Amino acid sequence: MGIRAEDVKKAQERFAGRIHRTPIITCKSIDRIAGCQVFMKCEHLQKTGSFKARGALNAVQKVKDEQAIHGVGLAWAASQVGLPCHVAVPRNAPPSKMEAMMEYGAKLELCDSTVKSREDTCARLAEDLKFYVVEPFDDPNVICGQGTIGAEIIEQLPDIDAIFLAVGGGGMASGVVAYVTEIRPDIKVFLVEPEGKDLAAYLKRGELTAERDVVDTIADGIRVLKIGKYCYPILKACADNIITVTDGEIRAALKLIWTRTKQRVEPSAAVPLAGLLKASPSHLGLKKVVLILCGGNVDLDFIP
Amino acid sequence: MGIRAEDVKKAQERFAGRIHRTPIITCKSIDRIAGCQVFMKCEHLQKTGSFKARGALNAVQKVKDEQAIHGVGLAWAASQVGLPCHVAVPRNAPPSKMEAMMEYGAKLELCDSTVKSREDTCARLAEDLKFYVVEPFDDPNVICGQGTIGAEIIEQLPDIDAIFLAVGGGGMASGVVAYVTEIRPDIKVFLVEPEGKDLAAYLKRGELTAERDVVDTIADGIRVLKIGKYCYPILKACADNIITVTDGEIRAALKLIWTRTKQRVEPSAAVPLAGLLKASPSHLGLKKVVLILCGGNVDLDFIP
Repeated sequence: MGIRAEDVKKAQERFAGRIHRTPIITCKSIDRIAGCQVFMKCEHLQKTGSFKARGALNAVQKVKDEQAIHGVGLAWAASQVGLPCHVAVPRNAPPSKMEAMMEYGAKLELCDSTVKSREDTCARLAEDLKFYVVEPFDDPNVICGQGTIGAEIIEQLPDIDAIFLAVGGGGMASGVVAYVTEIRPDIKVFLVEPEGKDLAAYLKRGELTAERDVVDTIADGIRVLKIGKYCYPILKACADNIITVTDGEIRAALKLIWTRTKQRVEPSAAVPLAGLLKASPSHLGLKKVVLILCGGNVDLDFIP
Repeated sequence: MGIRAEDVKKAQERFAGRIHRTPIITCKSIDRIAGCQVFMKCEHLQKTGSFKARGALNAVQKVKDEQAIHGVGLAWAASQVGLPCHVAVPRNAPPSKMEAMMEYGAKLELCDSTVKSREDTCARLAEDLKFYVVEPFDDPNVICGQGTIGAEIIEQLPDIDAIFLAVGGGGMASGVVAYVTEIRPDIKVFLVEPEGKDLAAYLKRGELTAERDVVDTIADGIRVLKIGKYCYPILKACADNIITVTDGEIRAALKLIWTRTKQRVEPSAAVPLAGLLKASPSHLGLKKVVLILCGGNVDLDFIP
């Protein structure tokens, strides 16, 4: 099934009042460094500290009669509609995310930090508990929910040239791409990936050749290598708009956001800025761009 | 001279459009922990990353025909009105603050981290360069400028019970106290101090007995021990509303703000929340309180 803009709008109406319409911030100092007007969509200020609350709530509302499994956004969404929730969590997940899920009342099942281990754990739990499995990104309802970010951006800033976003499993990316491509095909969407993901080759050839299923990057929110099967056909259309950034570039962008905007975003949220600075807006002919700051669930390894 | 609410309102009109009307944020999780409604006034999102831009701009506009010296806010204010600026900076000041001052075009003169060394350095520079010295907090124009935070809070949230703020040299505290006491004496202002400042005894006795002139605290923005001579008579009226917090309590409050609100404030900005949690709003009969998040100029000792 494809994702239609109409479904995205319905998702948006469905969760009005429960999902924040997140603010968009600007920073003259970042505009100057980037050489264009930069607008930052603050999904780190979304419920649960990331955009994932959108997809999770949309998915959970649709399966309310069944049962559910996965992530901070999902744990929150399940608590909102009154469903029990078990989450398969990689042992190396940030403790802050684990604490947040437990605060929302979810039960955690630790697994290894591979996609296979997570899937096996979910399958076992679903079998044992007779629970419904909500995929973190490869579920049309989740994709529609994430797509509402695109709908909001266009409502808030109708005259932009481009949107830059970070790609992990592709749920947010494909939701935003599907919506924007249908409603405003003149707005370019740039997919920014961490080095080692090799998204362009993967989208062209349609399969992964790597043996590992995660990317080694500081951007822990987008470590997953494989794009979801619902996401794949949508993102294939963007194969020419991919920007690859290194950990060093992500770190530099994160430092800029922390010091200049005073927003405590997570490393994945700095990936779009890293991509923008690498691509050079003047080279691409861009004047007004939106970066999606996807989340703020960062650990406190440093307190002075 | 006293500080009149009228002067504060004039300062506010004078810098309309150059100083941000900062937003007020809320966080359900912090409301729950505090046991009352908590509103946070975001001065870390002010120009220069702290409220100091207010006082500095007000002072610099008034001495525009003369010349000027001190701080990130001042360096920015001087650049706004086109004045040269030298700043006496303690050697142990956060590098981020030094970088910011240089970016605004100020020249830095390093001194020791004592008030005496700063004053000696300023006096020498003023003598050598024939510059005007702008005191960081003990200047009626600076105090009036900082008082505009109080004016804004009352406009934004007329029905609050109390304001909690951190006290360093007393410039912001006395500006807010002077304005609020005159215009809305029903709103209580609580002064929160770091352990070792001993503000209550000092305000009662009128002089310092300590030999040192700085407090040893992680809240580097409020290390100065002595209250300015213009600030002293204003704050004397608040001697019963002082709350003392430890470094541990400041750290815990900082962690809460970072993780729950995703705002990257500096340690001094967490002092009011530390005070609120220590005082217990229900014990004080408070239902709606404002905390002033004074600044966000924190260093990046941690990038993952």
